[in-house]
Amino acid sequence: MKISELSARTGTPVPTIKYYLRERLLPEGARTAPTQASYGEAHVQRLGVIRALVAAGVSIAEVRRVLETLDHPPTSGHQLLGSAHAAITPPADDSLDLTAAEELVAGLGWKRGMCDDAVLHGVARALDGLRSAGFDVPREVMPAYLKGMREIADAEIAGVPTTSPEDAVRYVVLGSVLPESLLLALRRVAQQVASSERFGAVEL
Amino acid sequence: MKISELSARTGTPVPTIKYYLRERLLPEGARTAPTQASYGEAHVQRLGVIRALVAAGVSIAEVRRVLETLDHPPTSGHQLLGSAHAAITPPADDSLDLTAAEELVAGLGWKRGMCDDAVLHGVARALDGLRSAGFDVPREVMPAYLKGMREIADAEIAGVPTTSPEDAVRYVVLGSVLPESLLLALRRVAQQVASSERFGAVEL
Repeated sequence: MKISELSARTGTPVPTIKYYLRERLLPEGARTAPTQASYGEAHVQRLGVIRALVAAGVSIAEVRRVLETLDHPPTSGHQLLGSAHAAITPPADDSLDLTAAEELVAGLGWKRGMCDDAVLHGVARALDGLRSAGFDVPREVMPAYLKGMREIADAEIAGVPTTSPEDAVRYVVLGSVLPESLLLALRRVAQQVASSERFGAVEL
Repeated sequence: MKISELSARTGTPVPTIKYYLRERLLPEGARTAPTQASYGEAHVQRLGVIRALVAAGVSIAEVRRVLETLDHPPTSGHQLLGSAHAAITPPADDSLDLTAAEELVAGLGWKRGMCDDAVLHGVARALDGLRSAGFDVPREVMPAYLKGMREIADAEIAGVPTTSPEDAVRYVVLGSVLPESLLLALRRVAQQVASSERFGAVEL
């Protein structure tokens, strides 16, 4: 199909498609004339992935790393997850104090060596942010965070498809980042449901 | 204290403080000379809140709405949560089909009227994003998302402090957005823990 049809099929403006081509997020189409190329279903699918990642707040540089992991996945299941996380997690920051983060994630079943530094630093950075805002997660709420996230992760890792290596790669890489906005959106609805049960429903 | 001390105390560059003053996110200090003002502990605390919200990815316009809710809270507990969510949720989008979102959140205990439209539209938007990426949350994973988020929300709403109305407002408004990055960071650690248990730990 022409670039105009690719645009119509995916709801992506032509200049945006050209930008992704220049940034090499999207492979070149098959050249049919000096100024024309033909695109296929692989382009439609990849554009969908790029658009969803961008909409999820992933930067272009991170999208590139996610796509590289999709195209050149490591062979072990656990390394695959590490690569997917590395693509979307800021690098480890050695100025962070990890003591509080390590104590906290012990509640997830974490033991030293079970996860890479960047991901642990993400927890430390989030705790720092809460501290600088003077916000304390109440003592009785934190266990619910740990339990909820561990149960979710267990289900997600158990759900890694075994149909084909390609399916597993796609699931792990995209499943790390894409469901984040769904989880946060579900939390807000759940908060309003719980709140309306506690405080009584009122017109919002 | 002078603006230079406020900067040192909070780790915020002076030009950034001046920007927040111009944007009226931070109240003026007490004028001590035509070009000098004095700032107090309230400024330190508010700067911490602003910095944490900005670091959490909240836009300046949304920070302003969050601060307005903190300063002029509605009186009912449930309306308070609605205002906090309204400050950080994009407006409802009438072009979205809510059928799938409504079916999904029924699993959270949701019934019509229990939450405001913008929050429900957030779920619909997240489902749309997954669909356009061609990513399906596996049938056995979605119940874990619902159960985990409902348990977290129950603990959070039960944790609303009753010490003072100010404490409750601060907790509900900031607790809607600030713990989001902690939750997502915990999910990544939990995924690596679950993955190392399933696939065996390897050097990452």
